[in-house]
Amino acid sequence: MPNKLPDGFRYAGVASGVKASGKLDLALIATEQDAVAAGVYTTNIVHASSIDWNRDITPTDQFRALVINSGNANACTGQQGESNNRSMAELTAQQIGAQPNQVCVFSTGIIGHQLPMAQIEPGISDVANQLGDSKDHFTTAAEAILTTDQGLKTASRIIKVGDQEISVVGMAKGAGMIGPKMATMLAVVMTDAAIDKSSAQTIIQHAADASFNRVSVEGHMSTNDGLILIASGKSSASIDAGEALNALAGAVEDTCIELARQIPADGEGATHLVEINITGARSDADADKIARAIASSNLVKTAVTGNDPNWGRIVSAAGYCGANFAMSEVALKLNGQTVFEHGQPVDFCEKTVSGMLKDSFDTLIELSVGSGPGNARHWTSDLTTAYVEFNSEYTT
Amino acid sequence: MPNKLPDGFRYAGVASGVKASGKLDLALIATEQDAVAAGVYTTNIVHASSIDWNRDITPTDQFRALVINSGNANACTGQQGESNNRSMAELTAQQIGAQPNQVCVFSTGIIGHQLPMAQIEPGISDVANQLGDSKDHFTTAAEAILTTDQGLKTASRIIKVGDQEISVVGMAKGAGMIGPKMATMLAVVMTDAAIDKSSAQTIIQHAADASFNRVSVEGHMSTNDGLILIASGKSSASIDAGEALNALAGAVEDTCIELARQIPADGEGATHLVEINITGARSDADADKIARAIASSNLVKTAVTGNDPNWGRIVSAAGYCGANFAMSEVALKLNGQTVFEHGQPVDFCEKTVSGMLKDSFDTLIELSVGSGPGNARHWTSDLTTAYVEFNSEYTT
Repeated sequence: MPNKLPDGFRYAGVASGVKASGKLDLALIATEQDAVAAGVYTTNIVHASSIDWNRDITPTDQFRALVINSGNANACTGQQGESNNRSMAELTAQQIGAQPNQVCVFSTGIIGHQLPMAQIEPGISDVANQLGDSKDHFTTAAEAILTTDQGLKTASRIIKVGDQEISVVGMAKGAGMIGPKMATMLAVVMTDAAIDKSSAQTIIQHAADASFNRVSVEGHMSTNDGLILIASGKSSASIDAGEALNALAGAVEDTCIELARQIPADGEGATHLVEINITGARSDADADKIARAIASSNLVKTAVTGNDPNWGRIVSAAGYCGANFAMSEVALKLNGQTVFEHGQPVDFCEKTVSGMLKDSFDTLIELSVGSGPGNARHWTSDLTTAYVEFNSEYTT
Repeated sequence: MPNKLPDGFRYAGVASGVKASGKLDLALIATEQDAVAAGVYTTNIVHASSIDWNRDITPTDQFRALVINSGNANACTGQQGESNNRSMAELTAQQIGAQPNQVCVFSTGIIGHQLPMAQIEPGISDVANQLGDSKDHFTTAAEAILTTDQGLKTASRIIKVGDQEISVVGMAKGAGMIGPKMATMLAVVMTDAAIDKSSAQTIIQHAADASFNRVSVEGHMSTNDGLILIASGKSSASIDAGEALNALAGAVEDTCIELARQIPADGEGATHLVEINITGARSDADADKIARAIASSNLVKTAVTGNDPNWGRIVSAAGYCGANFAMSEVALKLNGQTVFEHGQPVDFCEKTVSGMLKDSFDTLIELSVGSGPGNARHWTSDLTTAYVEFNSEYTT
């Protein structure tokens, strides 16, 4: 939970009835006056109407609200999907006294069914009536965006600019269909910093590249992903100077990384959070290819599940990804223990290393492939029977 | 089992003791005199010494033998791996009265351990002493190359050229670590056709592209894959003419496709063989991208496991692969039943379609993405809890 919420925001969450379980499924984040907002969205050709809607609106300096429904993703394209999305924006705008194009929309949950507007429409009145600025309000909204998540995903940072404090808080959802480029992942980051929409766009794009674009659960890029940064401008701290702007960008990036790591950590059925650190590649792009190949390999993921220090699966995944390197320079550490060096396995006690892997929820794979300048980091989950059970039965 | 073995080959398989289970683990295929051989090998940077060895030797018209050990993949590079591989070729050459560079080597099984030469060395004498040309000998060899496979993988074709028959037979192994580009897959195709080494190379490369390069289990490309075509030249049928050569190429391709399909059908824990047929793409390359994205999606694979007609997961996988298409032209059939058309789900009974999927081991995904000329086919397995259990426990 954040220490201090940024000024100028109100939050609410309600159960509209979209989720048959009766859980919270409709969230609203509103600013007290026009605010700056910028976003980054899924690059999937097949995407929800809400993605097109938000892409048209942001970046903006006239943002007023973000409405998010969970339980049904409105992933339907076509007239009905668009019309339902527009209705969500229009109803929200009416409730808060704004124009529809000041309202962004996120939608997450099952794909393939039209939105049940009979629940959504009264739900939007309800949630607008509940708006408030307490931590409880924030938490309720953060809960209402979840689907298969097992817990809240929030993060926050505070930076000092002169005598003033600027607050950055974020909430996210996502546990499955997490691809390497923004999967079924929604995140919103709020700050009271006073920045323009162009700075907001630059900051959030960089933060996405360093965080949400580096996590995966199963590599399936979703239709509905989005990350929005909202800046209320309520802080009087001067943020024009390069240093303060950099500090803000760093705080947003750190918040996003902290949120992003929570996604594979909460990956469906995950028993390990895997961090993959590639160094010494010929370029960052090569390092990234290697990290993604390792993160996407079901054989690596099941080895992690089994606490198996299986260097062969890791090194061979690096080998087929298209990045070039010399085998004789490859070295691998698992949770700090060297298991492979100079292109050869080293003599280590499998039982000891397996025990180390078992005792830690975090698995750190450090692969050095040479002495080049290229680095990359990636986070993923392991692959368990619970994941398979969940995703072969998940139809309602 | 093949109807008629090609002339000019002898086969054997023994249990050398590499597999602790005592199962057959060493196979030898020898020609009675110098033969033509051509191969296609893994493109993984990280690969076994045997791959380098075979790549140096083939294509050749002085081939005499292929020795294959299973149970331990000799995936180790470096001096010890190379030396062990050379020993396998040298010992085999001694036994059959040939030179080492007339002997190809395949090695499959666990990666990460040096070959136990104390078992392999006497095993090579044994297996050479067992050589014979009966169907039993062929079957024993085909059994000795298996690792986690649940059954023999063989296929055969006969073509008529004038009054003569030419026989094509193949054996393969592979059930896990099957990537889209030749994973832990070994296959050998034998024919008595009289062709030169350049024709053999062309034929086997085309056959690989249409077959083994289109199957996947989990998309992890292995270190040891190879496909070798051996032509004994014992048939007196004239194969110089274009038509006869095309018929032979077709027979080799069909044999390879039949072998290749058996791999995901026997995928570790598989309960469905999934055939993905893409049509109407802007190019074959685009169609191929789409097919591979669908085949690699754990969400698609688990939906198939659960007999879930989940068009959303399939269509969204197509959407993120980088191929360009118009959503409004997308249509999807599952086992012949249209579930999505003109970019929209159609009204179908989920229960009925789910029942159809459940009753069939074969799942056919037919996705049309427009009216372009691009097509592609791909085969994969579904993803089950048994796969995960198997691959998180498989350390010995």
